[in-house]
Amino acid sequence: MVLRVAVVGAGAAGMSAASRVKRLLRDKAEVVVFEKSGWVSFALCGTPYYLGCRVKRLEELLYYSPEEFTKKRGIKINLYTEVVDVEADARRIRYRTRSGEEGVYEYDYLVLATGAKPRVPREWLMYKNVFALHSLDEADAIRKYVVDNSVKRVAVIGGGYTGIEAADNIAELGREVVLIHSRDHLANKVLDPEMAEVVEEKARSRGVELVLGKRAVSIEGDGGVARRVVLEGGDSVEADAFIVSPGIVPDTALAEKAGLRIGETGAIWTDERMRTSNEYIYAIGDAVETRDIITGGRVWWPFAPAANKQGYVAGTNIAGGDAVFPGVLRSSAFGAFGLYVAATGLREEEASRYGFKPVAATLTARTKAHYFGGGPEIRLKVIADEETGRLLGAQAVSEDASAFWRVNVVAALIWGHGTVWDLFSYDISYWPGANPVWDPIVVAARLLLRHFAKRPWKTLN
Amino acid sequence: MVLRVAVVGAGAAGMSAASRVKRLLRDKAEVVVFEKSGWVSFALCGTPYYLGCRVKRLEELLYYSPEEFTKKRGIKINLYTEVVDVEADARRIRYRTRSGEEGVYEYDYLVLATGAKPRVPREWLMYKNVFALHSLDEADAIRKYVVDNSVKRVAVIGGGYTGIEAADNIAELGREVVLIHSRDHLANKVLDPEMAEVVEEKARSRGVELVLGKRAVSIEGDGGVARRVVLEGGDSVEADAFIVSPGIVPDTALAEKAGLRIGETGAIWTDERMRTSNEYIYAIGDAVETRDIITGGRVWWPFAPAANKQGYVAGTNIAGGDAVFPGVLRSSAFGAFGLYVAATGLREEEASRYGFKPVAATLTARTKAHYFGGGPEIRLKVIADEETGRLLGAQAVSEDASAFWRVNVVAALIWGHGTVWDLFSYDISYWPGANPVWDPIVVAARLLLRHFAKRPWKTLN
Repeated sequence: MVLRVAVVGAGAAGMSAASRVKRLLRDKAEVVVFEKSGWVSFALCGTPYYLGCRVKRLEELLYYSPEEFTKKRGIKINLYTEVVDVEADARRIRYRTRSGEEGVYEYDYLVLATGAKPRVPREWLMYKNVFALHSLDEADAIRKYVVDNSVKRVAVIGGGYTGIEAADNIAELGREVVLIHSRDHLANKVLDPEMAEVVEEKARSRGVELVLGKRAVSIEGDGGVARRVVLEGGDSVEADAFIVSPGIVPDTALAEKAGLRIGETGAIWTDERMRTSNEYIYAIGDAVETRDIITGGRVWWPFAPAANKQGYVAGTNIAGGDAVFPGVLRSSAFGAFGLYVAATGLREEEASRYGFKPVAATLTARTKAHYFGGGPEIRLKVIADEETGRLLGAQAVSEDASAFWRVNVVAALIWGHGTVWDLFSYDISYWPGANPVWDPIVVAARLLLRHFAKRPWKTLN
Repeated sequence: MVLRVAVVGAGAAGMSAASRVKRLLRDKAEVVVFEKSGWVSFALCGTPYYLGCRVKRLEELLYYSPEEFTKKRGIKINLYTEVVDVEADARRIRYRTRSGEEGVYEYDYLVLATGAKPRVPREWLMYKNVFALHSLDEADAIRKYVVDNSVKRVAVIGGGYTGIEAADNIAELGREVVLIHSRDHLANKVLDPEMAEVVEEKARSRGVELVLGKRAVSIEGDGGVARRVVLEGGDSVEADAFIVSPGIVPDTALAEKAGLRIGETGAIWTDERMRTSNEYIYAIGDAVETRDIITGGRVWWPFAPAANKQGYVAGTNIAGGDAVFPGVLRSSAFGAFGLYVAATGLREEEASRYGFKPVAATLTARTKAHYFGGGPEIRLKVIADEETGRLLGAQAVSEDASAFWRVNVVAALIWGHGTVWDLFSYDISYWPGANPVWDPIVVAARLLLRHFAKRPWKTLN
């Protein structure tokens, strides 16, 4: 008997699950993927680099070619095919092709990898020069309009990761860019203000105009062409093209039709084996919530590494194996204006909100040994709980890639329930061409230890 | 009453302890450092780069100037002053200055930071063109002889870290270099053969001649000038200058005079507060052994980060505080021939020796996302225990600094007692300019998981 597995969504998570099932069961499983766009295994994280022409062709943003999946891995893929309904009791999905044909597929297991969708007012998108950057096709449209038409001045609305990277890439092309963000600081979901300031300073030094602390309330134009974005308070910003990157929400439409439990975050609930409230339906990727390892609560954290791993975990379990996805630390990273920016865990203000008593060390240091020229500077912040000494989060910004890696090191310590004493004691290696003998991580630990001077030393080892 | 603290050895460890005591006790402590050379706070790890002239002046290898310690931190430093005896019962040391004057200092606490010494046959050093690279003065002598005399062909004896880095730096100057190592592979104390091979291949591609698997048994010469090194089996290698880097041993002479317990490794025993078997004597740095976090046994692991931290810990405890140094993971790193090389934990063969059942994943992958050009390749090896899934070690080699950092990430997971399931699940961040979405670390985890497919998933979270 062949196990029939349907996967909705051919993004990274969906293809990861599909591949895993076929790898484990081979001919004992039929895996059919339904994707409403024409793309498979795409990297949305790469779209800003397509705008900036670092990535020349959209096809470069695919992790694997469709043939890799169909011919080599034996997965069936239906492109331009939208799944419109899930009949959970009958274990059946209904789909519709681009040409309007309808069909039905009966599954043993269903995997929902429906992703997220941008929150953009529909009326904004009526203008031909307003774009929402959340698909490969949209990225293509932006590049055609902005780059190929040599648009002079571009307004980017939304200063999260994608907005920042879009602004950077368009500025790199020599266009005027104004980046509008509703909060006082960029990337406020992952960076504390004193960290975001480093990014802002660098953005301005590269000629990007920043409008911070003002929400965009409407877009005005004429003849189908947007002319200006109006901000709360009444100011407006004129531009020739508008890229809207206002954040995303999980796409739970099908999950709701299937009667699945929606979690407190608004995303699809699953257990740690990625199974939804229906035992024959798994859900993965940007549409699902997961566990916050630090707070123990639920969190919606739509990033590619989690999505890929959730696909692997769901696929393993569907194929009769045993795997769990324990949750996330809220790790994330981006790059812009020549900077590497990374963060993990809770921000300082956020930590208070979750009932911790945060103490923090923020420092600016050189990334390498002084006799190797010292390397670029890094600004590093590490946050810990004053009651327990437990590490809660880290953020770093530098022209040096070690900002990214140092945050990953702190994340690995947080994953193991490390304390400020572990941050100091952990056996980080040293080579003068890679770090100073007192690595900035260890210096941060020394600063944090001042808050714990009277406590007994408490490491994991 | 002023606490009298004597520190023997002005290297990184000694000065770290001295600084910490003064920082905590200020005028309530007198801290006197005794150093037989003329250098303070020196970076022996930097000596190969002085040979290669990347570091122009020896002074650049000092972390801080002597004035930083004497004027700013209030530490007394006696240079060219050798401590010749410790009278532990009387809490007194005897010292002798360069000019032959003798003196006595009575301490409340003594810190031994006597370091390590090279194991070089005395008769080899009788030749004016044979050098042992283990001090700033010796580095200076080598550079004067090799570089300033434009020596044509240099033989480096010993293919550990320092020998490899010395060979690389001298090759960079355009000299012929032959690197002789007694084992079949370079850096065999930290790398498994298939990892060392990457380094060897790169060394040869840069014109460095490698003679592996042959021990140097003698040096022959005439008129005070060495001509050749004779290898076991009878072959010999001719050169114009010889740099001997045959490994080091802990300098325990004073510890033995003081009647302190010497550990099973041959280095000074201390507890985790860095106190020796005498309650008034602490010992730190390359002269002491410590705990091996992975095996639970004792290990002598003479590297700068541990030495510095041990100094901080000893200083804290002497000043009445509370700090411990839990031990090491055997993390280490070096750089040569354009490669970053790093390792932590046990090698595969070593893991068997300690009673583990090692399984390993070794892979070659790109360091960045494909649409960021993929970055240089990395070879990465991760070792785990088949019985428990516990991570035991990691090694990496790449032209990209991420080899160094990826090993540090695995080390942080090992520090927290992570398993192969944690290696997969841990929330590593992703930015296409820094890593692929399936980071090589996670790919290694997937390969390792094949050995554990039938086990219940077991993470720290």
